[in-house]
Amino acid sequence: MITVYHSEHVQAYVQALGSALPGHRVVHTMLKPQTATRYAVVWNPPPGFFTGLTDLQAVFVLGAGVDRLVAREDLPAHIPIYRLSDAGMAEQMIEYARYGVLHWQRSFDLYRNQQQQRQWQVQPDRRKQDTRVSVLGLGEMGGRVATALAAEGYQVNGFSRSARSLSAVTCVHGESALDEMLAHTDVLINMLPLTPATRSLLDGARLARLPAGAALIHAGRGEQLDENALLTALDSGALRFALLDVFSLEPLAKTHPLWVHPHALITPHSAAQTLISAAVLQISARIKALELGQSISGKVERARAY
Amino acid sequence: MITVYHSEHVQAYVQALGSALPGHRVVHTMLKPQTATRYAVVWNPPPGFFTGLTDLQAVFVLGAGVDRLVAREDLPAHIPIYRLSDAGMAEQMIEYARYGVLHWQRSFDLYRNQQQQRQWQVQPDRRKQDTRVSVLGLGEMGGRVATALAAEGYQVNGFSRSARSLSAVTCVHGESALDEMLAHTDVLINMLPLTPATRSLLDGARLARLPAGAALIHAGRGEQLDENALLTALDSGALRFALLDVFSLEPLAKTHPLWVHPHALITPHSAAQTLISAAVLQISARIKALELGQSISGKVERARAY
Repeated sequence: MITVYHSEHVQAYVQALGSALPGHRVVHTMLKPQTATRYAVVWNPPPGFFTGLTDLQAVFVLGAGVDRLVAREDLPAHIPIYRLSDAGMAEQMIEYARYGVLHWQRSFDLYRNQQQQRQWQVQPDRRKQDTRVSVLGLGEMGGRVATALAAEGYQVNGFSRSARSLSAVTCVHGESALDEMLAHTDVLINMLPLTPATRSLLDGARLARLPAGAALIHAGRGEQLDENALLTALDSGALRFALLDVFSLEPLAKTHPLWVHPHALITPHSAAQTLISAAVLQISARIKALELGQSISGKVERARAY
Repeated sequence: MITVYHSEHVQAYVQALGSALPGHRVVHTMLKPQTATRYAVVWNPPPGFFTGLTDLQAVFVLGAGVDRLVAREDLPAHIPIYRLSDAGMAEQMIEYARYGVLHWQRSFDLYRNQQQQRQWQVQPDRRKQDTRVSVLGLGEMGGRVATALAAEGYQVNGFSRSARSLSAVTCVHGESALDEMLAHTDVLINMLPLTPATRSLLDGARLARLPAGAALIHAGRGEQLDENALLTALDSGALRFALLDVFSLEPLAKTHPLWVHPHALITPHSAAQTLISAAVLQISARIKALELGQSISGKVERARAY
């Protein structure tokens, strides 16, 4: 039995997986799966979801981040977790990053402010090759974003935990290299996975290393950013704007000051949505391989949390 | 003598042209050029500027549009007008169009409205290949915009006065083809030059042919768009938003309702700014060629007005 948990598109997943895997029974649940569940296909299932699933062979995650799954107490350590390989999300993340970079480079934030004051004033032109973009996290998503922006002509730096090499991207690693990179950044794009090392990484001190008038595109995980420090930087004008897709608490609380900040652009964790058809293609192929006793790719290293 | 007229960057042009053409005297004026003026390098000079310039050999226009020059009474018909070949403007126009298309495709307009209501709701994902972009005008600028967006993966249609052929772009011409194209357009990008045939082209009837919820990116000339019809379409929600760079009167009057319309994004004719260095390189090379009696490219056909 294959059990699906997804708060929004559960019927679409059940139907598509059922068609792709005719030999399997595919069901969904909003509460507790049946004990016959052999494969769980999930996005943010409720606490206790995995308790007592003695037949469980593997968990497939319908999203890019696996941090919330590896930290769970109800999921035994011997059950492998598999993440999707892209599934159309990198392309969406490139679009999101490209929009945020253009928002800064082409002064759309300043023109928006001017419009509110009915002010007609041309801002100086800035070219792509004079725009310094830094990408935090060079995994499957961040690496694609960095190389795409570099190919378009931007000056791109990239930061990752371990050394990486990417076409046309200046790659650095290590904490001192990060501080140096931040000081030469016009647009900072956070694409890091949530790990103990990245939690609270973007604190007030690191935000303060960005040059005056830089911008932040935040599409990693909410727990990586000190939202109060961000508000301070936006209030003072140290940061021109922030485009935010993830928050320490989601959905963002109605009373959160970021909703009404004139220099914050809020999207509801929508920067990269899993494409159902692409996800089902990957998961069904992997379940078929597992049933044949073959090994499959995408297994999460729990110690690294990605 | 070379005389420069430009309301914003006149000193930069005089200095750069002087360096590039050491054998010439380069001056600027805010009013009336000296009669020794042999070459005029201008952007929107005041009425009467060209009167009595008996030595004038050629006029170079510092911008993409020449419509305002060809219609002038003070510029004799035998004086050739030369326009710049791109000068970095096509690349900027691609960026501007790309931003506007992403604003629609990735629902940034809807997320902006949701933010004002503190509403956390994911909009359905739409891919580039399912986004229908139509470009009006396939000249040096429009053609580059159309082929760039097609290369990125968008479904791109293009409309021009005479038949064109562009890589991966479905090109049409003729009025009936235009109406048909509009009916299958998610994002309409106007890049047409101002001519008698394009004046008032985007009237209420043509805007009404766009599907409900389409968007307009207007970067041609203000005189091509019925601004009242646009306001009606934005008010009713027939159009989701308009990104506007040109207006029937510029600067846009402080009292104009577009300034405060929640679904209008206003930029101050800044979509494609002439890059001074690129422009000076082109103009100085052409003046050198003219002085050697050679023919040069970029001459405006006054009858067509572009």
